[in-house]
Amino acid sequence: MFTAAFEERIPVLLKGPTGCGKTRFVEYMAWRLGRPMSAAGKAGNGDAPSQALPVVTVACHEDLTASDLVGRYLLEGETTKWMDGPLTRAVKAGAICYLDEVVEARKDTTVLIHPLTDYRRLLPIEKRAQILEAAEGFLLVISYNPGYQSALKDLKHSTRQRFISLEFDYPPRGQEAEIIAHEAEVTDKVANDLARLGEKVRNLREHGLSEGVSTRLLVYTGKLIRKGIPPRVACQSAVVWSLTDDQEVQRTLEEVVSSIFE
Amino acid sequence: MFTAAFEERIPVLLKGPTGCGKTRFVEYMAWRLGRPMSAAGKAGNGDAPSQALPVVTVACHEDLTASDLVGRYLLEGETTKWMDGPLTRAVKAGAICYLDEVVEARKDTTVLIHPLTDYRRLLPIEKRAQILEAAEGFLLVISYNPGYQSALKDLKHSTRQRFISLEFDYPPRGQEAEIIAHEAEVTDKVANDLARLGEKVRNLREHGLSEGVSTRLLVYTGKLIRKGIPPRVACQSAVVWSLTDDQEVQRTLEEVVSSIFE
Amino acid sequence: MFTAAFEERIPVLLKGPTGCGKTRFVEYMAWRLGRPMSAAGKAGNGDAPSQALPVVTVACHEDLTASDLVGRYLLEGETTKWMDGPLTRAVKAGAICYLDEVVEARKDTTVLIHPLTDYRRLLPIEKRAQILEAAEGFLLVISYNPGYQSALKDLKHSTRQRFISLEFDYPPRGQEAEIIAHEAEVTDKVANDLARLGEKVRNLREHGLSEGVSTRLLVYTGKLIRKGIPPRVACQSAVVWSLTDDQEVQRTLEEVVSSIFE
Amino acid sequence: MFTAAFEERIPVLLKGPTGCGKTRFVEYMAWRLGRPMSAAGKAGNGDAPSQALPVVTVACHEDLTASDLVGRYLLEGETTKWMDGPLTRAVKAGAICYLDEVVEARKDTTVLIHPLTDYRRLLPIEKRAQILEAAEGFLLVISYNPGYQSALKDLKHSTRQRFISLEFDYPPRGQEAEIIAHEAEVTDKVANDLARLGEKVRNLREHGLSEGVSTRLLVYTGKLIRKGIPPRVACQSAVVWSLTDDQEVQRTLEEVVSSIFE
Amino acid sequence: MFTAAFEERIPVLLKGPTGCGKTRFVEYMAWRLGRPMSAAGKAGNGDAPSQALPVVTVACHEDLTASDLVGRYLLEGETTKWMDGPLTRAVKAGAICYLDEVVEARKDTTVLIHPLTDYRRLLPIEKRAQILEAAEGFLLVISYNPGYQSALKDLKHSTRQRFISLEFDYPPRGQEAEIIAHEAEVTDKVANDLARLGEKVRNLREHGLSEGVSTRLLVYTGKLIRKGIPPRVACQSAVVWSLTDDQEVQRTLEEVVSSIFE
Amino acid sequence: MFTAAFEERIPVLLKGPTGCGKTRFVEYMAWRLGRPMSAAGKAGNGDAPSQALPVVTVACHEDLTASDLVGRYLLEGETTKWMDGPLTRAVKAGAICYLDEVVEARKDTTVLIHPLTDYRRLLPIEKRAQILEAAEGFLLVISYNPGYQSALKDLKHSTRQRFISLEFDYPPRGQEAEIIAHEAEVTDKVANDLARLGEKVRNLREHGLSEGVSTRLLVYTGKLIRKGIPPRVACQSAVVWSLTDDQEVQRTLEEVVSSIFE
Repeated sequence: MFTAAFEERIPVLLKGPTGCGKTRFVEYMAWRLGRPMSAAGKAGNGDAPSQALPVVTVACHEDLTASDLVGRYLLEGETTKWMDGPLTRAVKAGAICYLDEVVEARKDTTVLIHPLTDYRRLLPIEKRAQILEAAEGFLLVISYNPGYQSALKDLKHSTRQRFISLEFDYPPRGQEAEIIAHEAEVTDKVANDLARLGEKVRNLREHGLSEGVSTRLLVYTGKLIRKGIPPRVACQSAVVWSLTDDQEVQRTLEEVVSSIFE
Repeated sequence: MFTAAFEERIPVLLKGPTGCGKTRFVEYMAWRLGRPMSAAGKAGNGDAPSQALPVVTVACHEDLTASDLVGRYLLEGETTKWMDGPLTRAVKAGAICYLDEVVEARKDTTVLIHPLTDYRRLLPIEKRAQILEAAEGFLLVISYNPGYQSALKDLKHSTRQRFISLEFDYPPRGQEAEIIAHEAEVTDKVANDLARLGEKVRNLREHGLSEGVSTRLLVYTGKLIRKGIPPRVACQSAVVWSLTDDQEVQRTLEEVVSSIFE
Repeated sequence: MFTAAFEERIPVLLKGPTGCGKTRFVEYMAWRLGRPMSAAGKAGNGDAPSQALPVVTVACHEDLTASDLVGRYLLEGETTKWMDGPLTRAVKAGAICYLDEVVEARKDTTVLIHPLTDYRRLLPIEKRAQILEAAEGFLLVISYNPGYQSALKDLKHSTRQRFISLEFDYPPRGQEAEIIAHEAEVTDKVANDLARLGEKVRNLREHGLSEGVSTRLLVYTGKLIRKGIPPRVACQSAVVWSLTDDQEVQRTLEEVVSSIFE
Repeated sequence: MFTAAFEERIPVLLKGPTGCGKTRFVEYMAWRLGRPMSAAGKAGNGDAPSQALPVVTVACHEDLTASDLVGRYLLEGETTKWMDGPLTRAVKAGAICYLDEVVEARKDTTVLIHPLTDYRRLLPIEKRAQILEAAEGFLLVISYNPGYQSALKDLKHSTRQRFISLEFDYPPRGQEAEIIAHEAEVTDKVANDLARLGEKVRNLREHGLSEGVSTRLLVYTGKLIRKGIPPRVACQSAVVWSLTDDQEVQRTLEEVVSSIFE
Repeated sequence: MFTAAFEERIPVLLKGPTGCGKTRFVEYMAWRLGRPMSAAGKAGNGDAPSQALPVVTVACHEDLTASDLVGRYLLEGETTKWMDGPLTRAVKAGAICYLDEVVEARKDTTVLIHPLTDYRRLLPIEKRAQILEAAEGFLLVISYNPGYQSALKDLKHSTRQRFISLEFDYPPRGQEAEIIAHEAEVTDKVANDLARLGEKVRNLREHGLSEGVSTRLLVYTGKLIRKGIPPRVACQSAVVWSLTDDQEVQRTLEEVVSSIFE
Repeated sequence: MFTAAFEERIPVLLKGPTGCGKTRFVEYMAWRLGRPMSAAGKAGNGDAPSQALPVVTVACHEDLTASDLVGRYLLEGETTKWMDGPLTRAVKAGAICYLDEVVEARKDTTVLIHPLTDYRRLLPIEKRAQILEAAEGFLLVISYNPGYQSALKDLKHSTRQRFISLEFDYPPRGQEAEIIAHEAEVTDKVANDLARLGEKVRNLREHGLSEGVSTRLLVYTGKLIRKGIPPRVACQSAVVWSLTDDQEVQRTLEEVVSSIFE
């Protein structure tokens, strides 16, 4: 589906809970489509701007403005120099631009997203009175977490209907165990137990947990166990205390932990 | 009607839901009135500002200010240079200026719109203490979506009564099928099925859907089907998941999809 | 009354609904008082500031600040240059300054209006630590629409009691028909029908219409009819759709239209 | 009382309704205390800052900041120049500084007012890391209108208890008639009628009028009558319409007008 | 207690109502601890920053930011110059820094107060990427008025628990009479009457008075009486009108005044 | 646990009440991990920025922005100079960066924390279009106080699930007595009494106390007692008045004090 969308240059919206692998999915697809994540661009010396990032990821937040994405003029000694923002770099390089949790961003990003997502594929750079046409490989991918969805922070329909949507959920137990075994370098037994824990915890979501446990936290737990931390202690730090401050819910979670790691 | 308004230079307000073709209508009318959309202005090199856009489209948003429309002074080395904004460029060039979802913009845009929409046809450029008279062909067109209308974001009567209004709705089924067939390059059968789907989904609007499906999403679905994605899977991504996060409503939509693509 | 106020230099507040001719009244009075609206000041070339506007009109809005009215320093190359704002230009030139919908402006405009409206007739220009005495012909005129009046946006009594007030309403039917006939260049029959329509629509104000139809919209309707648009279609665009988004109210308005243009 | 306060340099708070003469009182007291209002400081040429104002009046508003009162650095070509604000000029010159409706100002003015109102008599100028000792004749006078008093805009007790208070009300009828006769240059008959009107209108305050009529508006009415406007018409503009938008209350006021000017 | 806290360098929080002498207490303690209030630092000529203030007092307000306390860079001709704020000057000079009504300040002051109030005694100056160690004599003293305490403006526990607290109240009657006699230079009889008035008024606090009368206002009253103002008139200005705008409460206060000054 | 997390470079979240020793814990762990708190970096002369802080602590507050953490350009004479913020210094030096009460910070810090807390370990410096890879020893540690937790200020799940969590509480009585004895240099008897007081006060938390007494305040009390202040007076200042303004609760606390220090 992502491949078809990419070939037709249809913008993609990824929906799903925290830590289920949306960012990794985008990077994986970029690699499959022949556009591997480059290690360049990580700065060595002070002043050279990063270059050639086929996947440009931006974690959006409440204070992110259009200028943060497009670029701005910077003073440099007595002259000013234009500095491309991450979206402009992606548009020029024909990279995939991934705006993570885009509903968090300020609304002036709308003016950038709309003309990039219809047949025009244009990025207006108002500060330079310029309109950039997106390079061949450019694709806009955004994500959002319907669990956070509220009247204030919902994606506007006029934005939303510019994307096809892919719904994500946590991986099934067997697959998650494999991921944990590989990433945390633990035995299959531990990995399986942690995947079972994940499954059980997510089924508790209606018992006061606003969000299930992410695969990432299960991997953290595995790593702590590998380091010699007793499993139940590791689960308490990386799962129970990380998920909730409510003592009632903590006790319920601890019982789930005890039922697996006796 | 638009032609009559244009000839009398009466400003036009387009009302209608998301993705029903308001932007395209403005561009089509500009073409019919002998003012084709120019491909110029798309930037090739870094510094040349775009020129001669007979339709200047601005997607308005909550942080759009009057300066974004009129222009501002920019530092360039040691001197400052005035840079016209999109509205000023339209006023000078005698272009149609289309402010999309104008109620979203900040209120200081009012000071610009009012004198441009009555017999004066003037654009005040306060920062230069200048008043520009609009060139012969200039016309202001704005749009807004009554579905979003609320106490906070309603168009003020003193603004609203400066425009004649055109109400838009989705195209009838036959016409929409033609559009889908042409844009997505699918067979008439698929296009007809998608147009039927659109019609049925829009009739569900009172069942928890705040907005009907746009023609654009139906075209996306067609493109995915042409790429070999099974129709029901394509509909799920491009229609069901894109319209709502509510699982109840998703199931209702999936039933509609199944009734057409068995 | 306005002439007496002008001769005594008593500031004037115009109250009345949208589009009933408050701006035109100010310009007409300026003309009658021997101070015709000059066509100068409309910019031909880029940099020359406009001059000699005996009526300076400013449409106020929520973001209008005192600096927008008084002026500000602008960077020009390496030096800064003071640029008078519209109120300062009016004070220096002895012009009438008309602040339209002044309650919309930010509250720091109060500091400017108060000393200009009592016996002092002074304009403080804080940024230059200067106090300007108003030239002989200067008069401050403001307007506001009591229909919008709310706790938040009401004119403060300490401001309000510095002005005498003139209440405006729509013109009586016969006079409005003359205006429509003259401005839209339509037959007396059409102009009369439109004036009757206006009268009837305004009587509906208690049936869900927050504001009556302006003379301007009736003139627009006349222009569309002259261009060959059928009267009922013209009324729908320029009156019904422009006044309301409520389908119930639209139907009521359409019946009023049908009762006049069968 | 004011003289005693001035001699002891006790700061004074003036309380009272709009237009009852608080500003004039301050100017009169300054004159009586041998510190006449100077006509200097009104700018003739462009750049000379005003000087030597024994009464410095500042109309406070919601956006007035400490910098507006103390002063700021201004760019001038390539150098910056400090520009004293009105409060600093008063502190240096030993003038009376009158902050009108001080509760409207932003709260950072507190930091300025407090050390100026106790035994220290100091004005901190933070931007220059300087503390100015007030010159001998300096006195801070502030005003506020208890009619506007609300939870949000009330004077803080820690500020309020630094001032003695003088309550103002409209002048008694005979005295007000003299003022009107003198200022509007009307006959004693007209002046008396207007003073009676004022008295009656103020007694209506509990009938929906939030504020009584100011002496200023009565003077305006007198001026219009002297210009030949019929008294009842003059009263309608300068009193009825200026006091309220409520048609019910307007009718009550018109009856009061009719009972005096038959 | 204050001496012990000073010797241990334990930060001190002063709690108490308006005008009960918190500021004077800090200055007195500084004097007792051998650090008299210097008269230097009061500016004589324009540019010399003040120096060597053993008690640095800052009246906090809603717009007070960390930069106001720490310092900032100022443009000076073509170069910039760092200007220490009052807190930095106190930290360097080893002075007592007294932040009056600290809850009013903006929250970025927290970052400054916390490391200064624990064992670290450090002031971070972010703008210079510098950390200052407090000089030997430095002590932070803050005050707040529990009478104003609300959900919004309460001191955070993580801040509050960094201070020991001293609760203040008005002085007992005999002591207050002595203060009044000394400061206002009135007879013991008058001073005693005023101290009795103070005591009675403060007992009315539950009858609609949100705050008792400060010693300062009683001193003002004494000064006015010494100047020849009749006692009841002086009390009305300096006590009754200064404490409340409520006519009911004013009458109650006037009765208290009459019971003492017949 | 912290050691294991550090070795795996798993970010750590510390949860717990005010003054229970979270900051000290981070510093202790840094010391145990062979990275002692350096005394360098405390500025001696004016301009040298601090260097080599293996634990960089930032007390977060409502106005803390991403620029405060990452760094900014500063004007220096005619040129601009980049100044690293505390987070950037930690990332470069491989230090532990401790963000205290991170929920208080503005949301644009999210964009910094996210890529630093997953497998990427990257710090984007948007203003320089640069991405820094964290040095080997870098670890992000954040804290928050669940007692303050509210809908507005809760840590987002997408942030929270990037950390393992350690819950802190006050030390048990015996251990707390040792701390008090050591820090306040008091006898074991006094230290034990104070530890008992702490335990009793914390059990009162459901009786109107929103937060228990911190170990820090108990140490302060000890210091005052050592200075000769009678125990009950010392407790009143350092415990009772510091914990609450409520007179009811103060009396309850005083009874607890009396039951221990008769």
